[in-house]
Amino acid sequence: MHNKYIFSNIVGVFVFSEHFKLLDKKMFSNSEQYADKENIEKEFSKKYKNLKKPSGKELENILVFLKDEQFFDGFYAMNMELTKKLIKDSVKDDLLIIQTISSIREIDRIVNIMIKRLREWYALHNPEFEHSIKDQEKFVELVISKDKKELLGKLDVDIEDSMGAEFTKDNLEPIINLAKEVNGFYSLKKKQVEYLDGLMEKVCPNMLVITGSLIGAKLMDQAGGLKNLMEFPASTIQLLGAEKALFRHMKTGAKSPKFGFLHEHPLISQNPKQIQGKIARTLADKICLAVKVDYFKGEFIGDKLLKKIEEKFK
Amino acid sequence: MHNKYIFSNIVGVFVFSEHFKLLDKKMFSNSEQYADKENIEKEFSKKYKNLKKPSGKELENILVFLKDEQFFDGFYAMNMELTKKLIKDSVKDDLLIIQTISSIREIDRIVNIMIKRLREWYALHNPEFEHSIKDQEKFVELVISKDKKELLGKLDVDIEDSMGAEFTKDNLEPIINLAKEVNGFYSLKKKQVEYLDGLMEKVCPNMLVITGSLIGAKLMDQAGGLKNLMEFPASTIQLLGAEKALFRHMKTGAKSPKFGFLHEHPLISQNPKQIQGKIARTLADKICLAVKVDYFKGEFIGDKLLKKIEEKFK
Repeated sequence: MHNKYIFSNIVGVFVFSEHFKLLDKKMFSNSEQYADKENIEKEFSKKYKNLKKPSGKELENILVFLKDEQFFDGFYAMNMELTKKLIKDSVKDDLLIIQTISSIREIDRIVNIMIKRLREWYALHNPEFEHSIKDQEKFVELVISKDKKELLGKLDVDIEDSMGAEFTKDNLEPIINLAKEVNGFYSLKKKQVEYLDGLMEKVCPNMLVITGSLIGAKLMDQAGGLKNLMEFPASTIQLLGAEKALFRHMKTGAKSPKFGFLHEHPLISQNPKQIQGKIARTLADKICLAVKVDYFKGEFIGDKLLKKIEEKFK
Repeated sequence: MHNKYIFSNIVGVFVFSEHFKLLDKKMFSNSEQYADKENIEKEFSKKYKNLKKPSGKELENILVFLKDEQFFDGFYAMNMELTKKLIKDSVKDDLLIIQTISSIREIDRIVNIMIKRLREWYALHNPEFEHSIKDQEKFVELVISKDKKELLGKLDVDIEDSMGAEFTKDNLEPIINLAKEVNGFYSLKKKQVEYLDGLMEKVCPNMLVITGSLIGAKLMDQAGGLKNLMEFPASTIQLLGAEKALFRHMKTGAKSPKFGFLHEHPLISQNPKQIQGKIARTLADKICLAVKVDYFKGEFIGDKLLKKIEEKFK
């Protein structure tokens, strides 16, 4: 009995005779049919007995047949559709986390620039108050809500004694406008942090418990996604964010850094310097574990991991 | 006839006998009295005949007398008051111009950072539209006001064909919030430019006509005020804002820059490269003149100066 061949690619499923003549075909009209190609192959198998997949010389003959111009448009269109679908599906929640944390870090930078300008500008009008208050958010709020006299009253300074210039309403307005914009940024940041919390809870609940959302998101951003972070050894996680210091260490023999983004972690910042390196090592170790569990959607063990670290350093 | 001496400083006016004994004094209780010291001196001159200002040895004797501790508090207080007043009075409109133009330049920088983030983030959702529109302000406006389907409809793209991911409302919201903040910055900038226009009109109407408010304010900012700018020769004004290129030229012998901030001037940017240097020289020359007129509050000649430049290069 002679063999018949069955062959499928992205444009369709083809059945060939033993002499490589086309006997039957089913062209795909969209990517759903392509995804369903195994069923179509099965149907052909029922219709034609003794179907086999071509190999070697046989495959070459079939591929020559498919080089025909009639298939070009089909190949192009289907390739396009599949690529688009892949791109579309590649947008996962960890990409959103990366965008959000980048945005939050930029907002911090922007707020710094703006506050510096605001303080310099406002100090022309009311240097005593500007100098007296260190808290940035409160400074902005008070500049917006109270006038010079009220603010100086709190400091027991008479408005006549102020070294600041008298400003007309016209001159004060652009300063207040700037302050309002800074205030807008503070609330934008709060909203974005909330949103980030939600994403982190969904994507990596285990890491979240150990690192908090900001550090966790920074680690993920630096690694380029949850999958990459999952593949890193603990030692790399420990130093993520300290690349500059690490390369300086490697180039010039300067002190090696002990932690990167992890330095913001309360367990590190609130403990004495001598054991910070040790804590960072343990933290990185547990984060490494937690991320693996998160990536493979394992059981929730974050709280246990965190407890172990806390017990070790208390 | 024996001489008597009259001597005044910031704490008061003193009359001494020929033996440098204090005959009379009038202590100042505030800076207004100090400002009025000539009248007090006149009164003493009527009361005591033959008053003369001490000099040489006589002055020394008087200064020894004033070294007494009883005057220390007075010196300190009056010095303090006068310094405060000087600081207060030093806030002139050109300081406000410098703050405003600095703020405007920072806003430009900030908007750039934010737009870059906004485009990257939004492109995950709707890459076709993000790619199709170059105008930043319009991009921001449309992202806020229209949804993906409407935007793709304009491009004749079916929403099914989009390479962007479907976003839930929760995922879209932070992007829209960011866009709204950018929009807020655009209107803040508009307001600040208007305010700057007003200040420039008041401080340097002549320069304003030639340079426009942004270039003029940048020149003033770089110089550190109207007075400094007024003291600069035209050649310095021509190169303000091109410091980096100038020092590179001096250090490495690279090409010397032909203009700094002036490159933004329409007369330069809209003319062929070969004559741009020449135009910059003429512009700087007229600006130099205009600033001097502005500083000394001379007649308005800005329009005549501008006309001369325009005639020369048309």
